[in-house]
Amino acid sequence: VKAAFIAVGSELLGTERLDTNSLHVARILDKHGVALVRKSVVGDVRSDIADEVRSAVEKNDLVIVSGGLGPTEDDLTRDALATAFELQLRHDESTLRDIREKFESRAMPMPEVNARQAMVFEGHRTLPNRRGTAPGFHISLARDGGEKHLWVFPGVPSELEGMVELDFEPWLSRVHPGGGRHRRVLRVAGMSESAVEEKIAPFYEANPTCAPTILSTAGEIQIHLVAQGSAEESWTQLDSWEGSLRGLLGERCYGVDGETLESVVGRMLASRGQTVATAESCTGGLIASRITDVSGSSGYFLGGVVAYSRDAKLFLLGVDPAVIDEHGEVSEEVSRQMAVGARRRFSTTWGVAVTGIAGPTGGTEDKPLGTVHLAVAGRDEVVHRRFLLPGSRERIKALTAQIALDLLRIRITRSG
Amino acid sequence: VKAAFIAVGSELLGTERLDTNSLHVARILDKHGVALVRKSVVGDVRSDIADEVRSAVEKNDLVIVSGGLGPTEDDLTRDALATAFELQLRHDESTLRDIREKFESRAMPMPEVNARQAMVFEGHRTLPNRRGTAPGFHISLARDGGEKHLWVFPGVPSELEGMVELDFEPWLSRVHPGGGRHRRVLRVAGMSESAVEEKIAPFYEANPTCAPTILSTAGEIQIHLVAQGSAEESWTQLDSWEGSLRGLLGERCYGVDGETLESVVGRMLASRGQTVATAESCTGGLIASRITDVSGSSGYFLGGVVAYSRDAKLFLLGVDPAVIDEHGEVSEEVSRQMAVGARRRFSTTWGVAVTGIAGPTGGTEDKPLGTVHLAVAGRDEVVHRRFLLPGSRERIKALTAQIALDLLRIRITRSG
Repeated sequence: VKAAFIAVGSELLGTERLDTNSLHVARILDKHGVALVRKSVVGDVRSDIADEVRSAVEKNDLVIVSGGLGPTEDDLTRDALATAFELQLRHDESTLRDIREKFESRAMPMPEVNARQAMVFEGHRTLPNRRGTAPGFHISLARDGGEKHLWVFPGVPSELEGMVELDFEPWLSRVHPGGGRHRRVLRVAGMSESAVEEKIAPFYEANPTCAPTILSTAGEIQIHLVAQGSAEESWTQLDSWEGSLRGLLGERCYGVDGETLESVVGRMLASRGQTVATAESCTGGLIASRITDVSGSSGYFLGGVVAYSRDAKLFLLGVDPAVIDEHGEVSEEVSRQMAVGARRRFSTTWGVAVTGIAGPTGGTEDKPLGTVHLAVAGRDEVVHRRFLLPGSRERIKALTAQIALDLLRIRITRSG
Repeated sequence: VKAAFIAVGSELLGTERLDTNSLHVARILDKHGVALVRKSVVGDVRSDIADEVRSAVEKNDLVIVSGGLGPTEDDLTRDALATAFELQLRHDESTLRDIREKFESRAMPMPEVNARQAMVFEGHRTLPNRRGTAPGFHISLARDGGEKHLWVFPGVPSELEGMVELDFEPWLSRVHPGGGRHRRVLRVAGMSESAVEEKIAPFYEANPTCAPTILSTAGEIQIHLVAQGSAEESWTQLDSWEGSLRGLLGERCYGVDGETLESVVGRMLASRGQTVATAESCTGGLIASRITDVSGSSGYFLGGVVAYSRDAKLFLLGVDPAVIDEHGEVSEEVSRQMAVGARRRFSTTWGVAVTGIAGPTGGTEDKPLGTVHLAVAGRDEVVHRRFLLPGSRERIKALTAQIALDLLRIRITRSG
């Protein structure tokens, strides 16, 4: 079964707003094993809406439309559907009464324009709106010897969600029983998409039916797995796939589903009774800010220093001035001393330090833009990594924070 | 001229992600007076991409496609376009060299799969990618006695934006000269939407043709103004509207268009030869991170302390333990001492401090969740504000950072 989603509204073609109703509908479709193959946005133009819906119904079994059901002149979805499929619109007295009562319950007279919302499709189902005035519709169309289904909802998210819950979802589970897609996401930091692809190549060969989707976001690769069937079967399948992938990725897979690096690091520290402090130059506090995005982080994060100046590195972190003079502020030696300094200053188990050149100026031939030195100090040793990162200032900051948290995570794992 | 936008990628049909490239493209089209009449998303399926692009080119003069140009098996935009319009793909040696060099500059060998990205359309323009490996394309098609234009960009936003700036926009202004809607955005921090509406009510009466749009985002209200006509006329009009609104908003308007609070604060500090340091508890480094998002911030930001523990407040910021014992860590007195401590520790003109309860736990009847104390220390006085902020942990952090930067801005302004 293939589904298409259409959002109606000129404001959704502008420079500020995105349709978000499709995310909610996608979640419900996914749960019932229906594939959303296309979504689109059209403006408040009768012929554009009619063309779009007609062509979607031709190509798909199920079409969901949101928006354009309001009371004003530019709410044209009803008229466009009537034109597109030669449907009869009629005035419905009970719908009008319902709308009028909603206004009266808020001690307001019903504006005359709202009477438009009492126009319904003859012979098709009208869906009551429990959270607003515009009713929705379920229209069945005979096509290609079968039936196609058109569901029409208001554009206001809470109103759409109400109808989806009480009318659309019950219908879906009746029409597509048993379906059910279950998902798992494996997350990997600090590797390129192609490096991940190479590592997991044997998985593709061993599991030709799996077809994972690889998503690349800032500093992170996600492997999306989907299993179909009953919940129990699917979970067994997902567990087995996850096991194989973790076998190939080793410690590089930091978590699954909604887990973030900072939440994983936080959980590891909390369960070990360990603590951490940060010493940041080019990330300017971003690592500390991410660590403290986690509720309960005050239990293991004691604090940090943003050492943006030479003096801050000397006086707050105890970096040796001779080392700065010899190697420069952006150097392996300084990052190591910063990590040790943070660990000592805050008396923590771990110290994480970063110094680098986030740009866009400040790069040299020797130390180009994007040069970053990371160090993690623990009880027994200080581990250092050097990176050359691409992109804008903000991207370099974000990538550095991500890699630093991942390096800390790996050090904690290896420390047992 | 009518334009359509198509985003390619199965992940954009899922339950988590929305295409945002269309917003950027809509802004550029709007600036040049081109109407975006339709946008759509299709998955990584060759025939779906081909159908979608073919039908968009039939109905519109200009079609913009983003995504599906990556190196992997499910990047199918190139192949789909070749099928849809019977275009020849050929291997381009200079594009391959360019991709290889990008990997080498990061000291990585080019994975073999990336060679796919060197396939270009014979007889059409290839757009170099300055921020990644996938080139884009500009394809002209003879249709209906005229020419239709297809622009194809990578899905990674920074890569698309680079090509839009350097290739697409120059072409647009050549093809659609003169047109043009011109926009200006006035930005106000730390006020509610209704408070802003009240302040600017006289503007609506005096300028009935203006019709500004008010947008509310996290910790900020934006007033969007649009003028139509030649650039010169529009700018005069926008300047005049901006002048009237600033007259009503006074110092509460912190900037226009793309200016951020941190960039405005940075410019003010730099022009005065002043410096700042931070002392953060509940924001966990976010204020420092925002200040250091600005290029050149090392000229006025000397550093900060994330004082997440009592000890950090005592030893790094010199807060008096008796004051903590008497008033608690989240208190006016402690925020004032933190601000003074940061200013002294880093020898800066200004010290900004925050202590509060970001939750979701830790609130008490006396100091409920969302209680935040802000202080800004200057040469002559320490100014304090207390807030009770709504929302999640991350929202409270974000709002606090926004209000703290705005308070600092107002103190700098008033100091002359």
